[in-house]
Amino acid sequence: MSEIVTAGILVIGDEILSGRTKDKNIGFIAEYLTNIAIDLKEVRVVADDEADIIAALNALRHRYNYVFTTGGIGPTHDDITADSVAKAFGVGIDHHPEVVARFRERFKGQDLNEARLRMARIPDGADLIQSATILAPGFMIGNVIVMAGVPSIMQAMMDIVAPKLKSGVKMLSESVRANAREGDVGGPLREIANAHPDTIIGSYPFLDENQQPNTNLVVRSRDQAKLTAAMDAVKAMVEGLKAAR
Amino acid sequence: MSEIVTAGILVIGDEILSGRTKDKNIGFIAEYLTNIAIDLKEVRVVADDEADIIAALNALRHRYNYVFTTGGIGPTHDDITADSVAKAFGVGIDHHPEVVARFRERFKGQDLNEARLRMARIPDGADLIQSATILAPGFMIGNVIVMAGVPSIMQAMMDIVAPKLKSGVKMLSESVRANAREGDVGGPLREIANAHPDTIIGSYPFLDENQQPNTNLVVRSRDQAKLTAAMDAVKAMVEGLKAAR
Repeated sequence: MSEIVTAGILVIGDEILSGRTKDKNIGFIAEYLTNIAIDLKEVRVVADDEADIIAALNALRHRYNYVFTTGGIGPTHDDITADSVAKAFGVGIDHHPEVVARFRERFKGQDLNEARLRMARIPDGADLIQSATILAPGFMIGNVIVMAGVPSIMQAMMDIVAPKLKSGVKMLSESVRANAREGDVGGPLREIANAHPDTIIGSYPFLDENQQPNTNLVVRSRDQAKLTAAMDAVKAMVEGLKAAR
Repeated sequence: MSEIVTAGILVIGDEILSGRTKDKNIGFIAEYLTNIAIDLKEVRVVADDEADIIAALNALRHRYNYVFTTGGIGPTHDDITADSVAKAFGVGIDHHPEVVARFRERFKGQDLNEARLRMARIPDGADLIQSATILAPGFMIGNVIVMAGVPSIMQAMMDIVAPKLKSGVKMLSESVRANAREGDVGGPLREIANAHPDTIIGSYPFLDENQQPNTNLVVRSRDQAKLTAAMDAVKAMVEGLKAAR
């Protein structure tokens, strides 16, 4: 039997909860994981609060194969992710010699201050996620991948860490536009879903270019033959609705 | 002592977790709640899975004053929010006579099908959230507010329900642009944060119009005098950095 690999996301940051910053990382990581055949099962957003971070991280890391965190690894007092992760794993945390050495090359004299050195604090046993363009490194410890909150940096970190992750059997997906209101496809769609048990059939209403209620129908499966069979049934249903109008 | 009112958000939908749909509701509700003096403490995103929805809803509703859910109240087989909420509360669920009556006015003959009637299923004891422009109503049961996933409809529902909620003392906020890299403000900012305990001081790096690393500093407090005192200290620190260059 093919393995299914699961993941959770933990977004850390007061600025997301206050609405001041609009998160762009959840959607990016979600799509990225789908593309590398990892099933995202749950997302949580918590404040810059140690107890909240530890509780959420422990819940997610015991439940899923991987947990991706974003935010809270910068140089200021409210950046407490690395320390919280170390506590969650019950390991020590200290300035990582490799990161400190890189900072010494990059920052001269007073610029290598305590705040910047804070970004070199890495939990014991973690592997760094870094490159020439990343200042403050992310890290992976156990099944937890700790990344920056700034989207461009987080995206660079995903590219570095992704090849190291195990992935499952890719979830395949096809969609068709129903040209019908969701309430008109709900009944037949349920019958199709019942008749095709190894597929996931979703229905997503939207307003089309004529400002009319319309619906996208999406069939997902890890098995191409089952996907095709279900999609054929969906398309026949859509054609039937069209003919009935 | 002034009361603090807290909230959680529960986003329900496979399409968010697959990355197919990019969520726009978290940021909107977060900002809305800040404006009506309700503190958003946590967000969760779960799949269209009854056990997952119930577990997350129960965790959030017992922890916070309010829980706002989005998604899963449409007419198709994967819309299971209303039934899951009823189970979480241990109450029955049935077609709500008022909603059915409205549907009978709106849909003629075959159009009032089983799928559409599904949108009239409301947990016992819930209050409807509806208006002339909202087809499938949301509802409030206990401290849980159940809303649509389509942003425009969710936003209309927020406007209907918001006046019925208790709110706390508004969190005030002021920000200043540091014109400095985050690593240069981290040290002095920590000292200011320690010296101003009833404020929350955040630091948000960004690339400015010259593509240079820059930082926004945000001070938040429920007390205007304390906010002003902390902000004065932050501004003095920023001026000091400027003078030192």
